[in-house]
Amino acid sequence: MSAAYYQGNQSFQINQSPILTPSADEVRLKVAYCGVCGTDVHIFHGAMAHRLSLPQVIGHEVSGVVEAIGTNVQNIKIGDRVTVRPLKIGEAHPSDNGFQHIGKNLKFIGIDSAGGMQTFWNVPAYTLHKLPDNVPLDLGAMCEPLAVACHDVRLGRVKSGENIVVIGGGPIGILIALVAREKGANVLISELNESRIALCRELGFQVINPIQEDLEKAVEVFTKSEMADVVFEVSGVQTGVKAMTNLPRVRGRIVMVAIHAEPRQVDLFRFFWREIEMIGARVYESEDFETAIQLIDSEKLPLQKLITQVSPLAEVQSVFEIIDKNPAGMKYLLDCR
Amino acid sequence: MSAAYYQGNQSFQINQSPILTPSADEVRLKVAYCGVCGTDVHIFHGAMAHRLSLPQVIGHEVSGVVEAIGTNVQNIKIGDRVTVRPLKIGEAHPSDNGFQHIGKNLKFIGIDSAGGMQTFWNVPAYTLHKLPDNVPLDLGAMCEPLAVACHDVRLGRVKSGENIVVIGGGPIGILIALVAREKGANVLISELNESRIALCRELGFQVINPIQEDLEKAVEVFTKSEMADVVFEVSGVQTGVKAMTNLPRVRGRIVMVAIHAEPRQVDLFRFFWREIEMIGARVYESEDFETAIQLIDSEKLPLQKLITQVSPLAEVQSVFEIIDKNPAGMKYLLDCR
Repeated sequence: MSAAYYQGNQSFQINQSPILTPSADEVRLKVAYCGVCGTDVHIFHGAMAHRLSLPQVIGHEVSGVVEAIGTNVQNIKIGDRVTVRPLKIGEAHPSDNGFQHIGKNLKFIGIDSAGGMQTFWNVPAYTLHKLPDNVPLDLGAMCEPLAVACHDVRLGRVKSGENIVVIGGGPIGILIALVAREKGANVLISELNESRIALCRELGFQVINPIQEDLEKAVEVFTKSEMADVVFEVSGVQTGVKAMTNLPRVRGRIVMVAIHAEPRQVDLFRFFWREIEMIGARVYESEDFETAIQLIDSEKLPLQKLITQVSPLAEVQSVFEIIDKNPAGMKYLLDCR
Repeated sequence: MSAAYYQGNQSFQINQSPILTPSADEVRLKVAYCGVCGTDVHIFHGAMAHRLSLPQVIGHEVSGVVEAIGTNVQNIKIGDRVTVRPLKIGEAHPSDNGFQHIGKNLKFIGIDSAGGMQTFWNVPAYTLHKLPDNVPLDLGAMCEPLAVACHDVRLGRVKSGENIVVIGGGPIGILIALVAREKGANVLISELNESRIALCRELGFQVINPIQEDLEKAVEVFTKSEMADVVFEVSGVQTGVKAMTNLPRVRGRIVMVAIHAEPRQVDLFRFFWREIEMIGARVYESEDFETAIQLIDSEKLPLQKLITQVSPLAEVQSVFEIIDKNPAGMKYLLDCR
């Protein structure tokens, strides 16, 4: 079978690789689509090298069909159409506080072990979520990023009628905006890139370019001076962090979605002054995948508009190079069939 | 009557001042004790000059006896022993989110208007909380800082059996520690000053000096690797902010109590990674004063041990100078009778 091995140095190589028998608790998927995540792009740029075993197959936004099952596997059968929640739950640690989806011994499948950019992929059966018949497999590969957004919106406790600001209109930011709007919230997006701004507007969102307009004033107008109930920081940059504390109302919430690799200057006085709450949110729990699948099945979200390009697995190298040159792109899928 | 006017330039002057008739909604108190708050010391150091009208009487940690009442005042009678919640509620603003105790138009009595370091003090009747007969007036003047601690512990959602770390063992830090312990929590205090460390230990707390010991390791041992359920950042310094993100368990809480006048370097990655929550907490609501009064009345807290010195109002200048020279001191009360 074909597998896209990341070699390091921004280089993928398609190799032929043996088809492995699933272990007792595993399932072998025939992979349909594998999306390219921002994390995969970070890996392409040299990040997380200590977690990879090069050459390694990466990728974790996967849809597929069950092709073989291990001897212990129940409730999953050959032919099931599925998506993968790529969390390998480790031994519980006292500091996990019962939340194993981000436990100390968690391993992320597709980074800490082989990922989905290959024809067949063996994964633990407990990572699977079944896709309804209606859900096409390309959208099935978007369950994973959509589950991130569902998790973020859930942890932000977004309610109908609330005013939401999303700082950063990339794939995750837009998915958060879509999920929050579906919950009945009023959503404003802050984004710099003109192509992304155009897409956000096409999706019906009000968008502010904070270089051209004063974001705080815009939020004042948008919310009739109430200011934001919830701010999602998805930009990952210092200017986003500077903005985030100015936007919530008293006891408003900030959801920290972005990965800030370095410490940031944060206006802690503002947290004190307005009793602002900040909530870190990482990956997802099982229920977020179920919510994401239901949302896709409901056909309420315009997810097809977020698919920038679908390419055969064999073109993985050029896809990563295109993403590098096109920061306005949204979701790139690899067709692994 | 005597009143201690702050003149600016670290100088107080005791002047004779006319006794004012309370307006319709006001009460005139005969002040018993007025505590010196860290905020008063900041004013002494030149802070908040734009909010003061010099020369001005400051002070807001007050106990006293009702001496006269305005024509509209109900439920308060002459002779009532009371403490003051020094918040002058302003017109509601849409961004207040209904929380007027920190609303946009809130004024703080004793900063934005005359305070309690005088013989008689007129305040809005709605700011009063009655003191039970058992509560001595010196402890009555500690209701205000204790209400801060009750508010912080309430917003931190501290529960019995939880592991709590208080960063900074000054007056508010120790009061938070006492209130959390009274709720059944296990409390560890981080403090640098040896005299404060000695007092914390005398009060029965385990204390770490983070210059001598690794605080994170100490919390690991203290919590049997569970790490902290709640961290209170009361130090107000960058090293405290650096420490605070390393101590919570997954989905642990950080309560931002301290006033950080400048932006701080914050490890936002850690918020994401462990889904940490941070909650800003400022002053108090009415229920926090009631909790504080009940706690004092119950005699469960060793509050007398926190009173470093009681001095006549006339000595206000020397009291502020002593506080300046003795960072280990806790609560200084002015006897205004």
